[in-house]
Amino acid sequence: MSPRAVRTVRFLLTGLGNVGVPLLEILRSRASLLMERYRLELLPVGLADSGGAAVSPTGLDVAAVLAVKRARHSVASLPGVGRPGMSGRALVREVKADLLLEATPTNLKDGQPGLDITRDALMRGMPAVLASKGPLVLGFQELARLSDLESPGRPPLRFSGAAGAAMPLVSLGRGDLALGKLGRFEGVLNNTSQLLLSRMSQGQSYDAALKEAQALGIAEADPALDVDGWDTASKLVILANAVMRVPAVLSDVAVTGMRGVTREQLDTARAKGGQVLLLARGEPLGEERWEWSVRPTAVDASHPLARLGPMEMGAVFRSDLHGVNTLINAEQGARGTGAAMLKDVLEIFPD
Amino acid sequence: MSPRAVRTVRFLLTGLGNVGVPLLEILRSRASLLMERYRLELLPVGLADSGGAAVSPTGLDVAAVLAVKRARHSVASLPGVGRPGMSGRALVREVKADLLLEATPTNLKDGQPGLDITRDALMRGMPAVLASKGPLVLGFQELARLSDLESPGRPPLRFSGAAGAAMPLVSLGRGDLALGKLGRFEGVLNNTSQLLLSRMSQGQSYDAALKEAQALGIAEADPALDVDGWDTASKLVILANAVMRVPAVLSDVAVTGMRGVTREQLDTARAKGGQVLLLARGEPLGEERWEWSVRPTAVDASHPLARLGPMEMGAVFRSDLHGVNTLINAEQGARGTGAAMLKDVLEIFPD
Repeated sequence: MSPRAVRTVRFLLTGLGNVGVPLLEILRSRASLLMERYRLELLPVGLADSGGAAVSPTGLDVAAVLAVKRARHSVASLPGVGRPGMSGRALVREVKADLLLEATPTNLKDGQPGLDITRDALMRGMPAVLASKGPLVLGFQELARLSDLESPGRPPLRFSGAAGAAMPLVSLGRGDLALGKLGRFEGVLNNTSQLLLSRMSQGQSYDAALKEAQALGIAEADPALDVDGWDTASKLVILANAVMRVPAVLSDVAVTGMRGVTREQLDTARAKGGQVLLLARGEPLGEERWEWSVRPTAVDASHPLARLGPMEMGAVFRSDLHGVNTLINAEQGARGTGAAMLKDVLEIFPD
Repeated sequence: MSPRAVRTVRFLLTGLGNVGVPLLEILRSRASLLMERYRLELLPVGLADSGGAAVSPTGLDVAAVLAVKRARHSVASLPGVGRPGMSGRALVREVKADLLLEATPTNLKDGQPGLDITRDALMRGMPAVLASKGPLVLGFQELARLSDLESPGRPPLRFSGAAGAAMPLVSLGRGDLALGKLGRFEGVLNNTSQLLLSRMSQGQSYDAALKEAQALGIAEADPALDVDGWDTASKLVILANAVMRVPAVLSDVAVTGMRGVTREQLDTARAKGGQVLLLARGEPLGEERWEWSVRPTAVDASHPLARLGPMEMGAVFRSDLHGVNTLINAEQGARGTGAAMLKDVLEIFPD
């Protein structure tokens, strides 16, 4: 191997919740691998959570950051580097860095604060890697124009973790299946609803299944986004824009949640060797027009997702050149999204 | 969308068989998409088959090339541009181009002529996209050093089509799962043996099943490479080097073909809701040591590949960060490998 220069990438991370914290943990555990294999040093120079920020041009101490987050405090409380009340947006505007990692909570109403943060970063020439879905669902076409997605020479925008966590749907659909004419897309894109439908199919009540999902840390205290189909629909909108290259928005998706699924529907599907899935679907109608839906769907034994497990997600891409590609992911914990973000970073800063 | 300059990539293609010809057909059918979406014009300036070559610095007429191949003649017979007896290696040495597409028949004995062709291209600074397995199975470590795989600044080497045709195993394992600590790998990587085992499991004889596979154009007249496991093993060696980053060679793989599978084994597996697969397997032993094998393996109903269809291939990657990712491909025809090569080209010549 020839000698290679180490590249130091100074990054900002906005959002230190169930994505941001595991991301920092991965960074710490894989720092030597990043250095040895990719000659890459990732240096946090600014971090923001809901209580404020921490800033250090020479790099923040990740162990200290993780300790303060474990104690459920804001990074703004870190001695010397803490900036109480400083927002993620202010961080992007005021701190010089080579990369933005955006992991604020998803907001499907107006995409904030992620949308403003991402826009500011791209306009300042900073590459952006997103985990949050809001900015993509509500601002995809604008962000594409501000980035390399539509404007060569503009900074890169990547979002592998936003549509499928550790399941690489964007890279499969947009990258590997490039040049293929895509046919019907089907996907189970939400953990909570799949676990609930599986358990209910085994005889559990909705309430008992929901308690299990919450105990596992999969479902939110308010599971409405999951069970009513909006989390699934938002991921479908991202795939529509990024993979099918159609400027779809949330209101283009016909959404039916899983609350109305009956015992009889579950039993009938199961008796046929299939199951009821909360299925995201894209159906090409020709001339770049697609029909988008999310709804409980009984699939029979011959369907590629017929045997999806309670803890699995999956998707089926059809292409005239590539045949049918089915991807199924059984993820272990919340690290998948952070790992997907780091994959994007490696793509932005290749050897 | 901002205006973008068209880039013309002048390429050489060595091998005009069941990969090279579909590749040219795809290029022709997707030329306007390549231009509109990627601003890329792919211009064939040199093509070689077993009878010789055709050369034109201003670009060969793809329609004329496809016509002469359909008539089962060599491109060397093309008026004006044909060069009877000119080898693929001579093409790479004598014709100036921006890219090599290598699709000569796989040769697991010495990797030729693909290995020499690829080495020459890389040493001349030419990016190379390979479909043929031979050069990778027999010369991976050398080619990695001659290319960007191990030597930043050297020309790119890509081979998406070599290990899984339209099933993106290399890009999933090496790209999407980057930074993950990989666990056991399992894959069904050969169409013919999967079709044969499926049909035999349904009661057909080996001979009848083989006739079907040959009629479908899946199996070679001499199916030894398929049924004796060497095609599977060669793909496993490529994944070992490219994805697990271990310098494995063919003799590191314990290979048992499928000829010895008994009716009883097939029936027992089927009764348990599983099947017998010709399974490629990589098992990490710690400290970068792996155990590699290809052998008929009975999997039960809980295995991710338990329901693999007769016309499907599939693989299971396990990663500490990404969980279990299962990819299953049902391919339609031989276009998948050509499509995978073009995906590599897009990666080498990004916007």
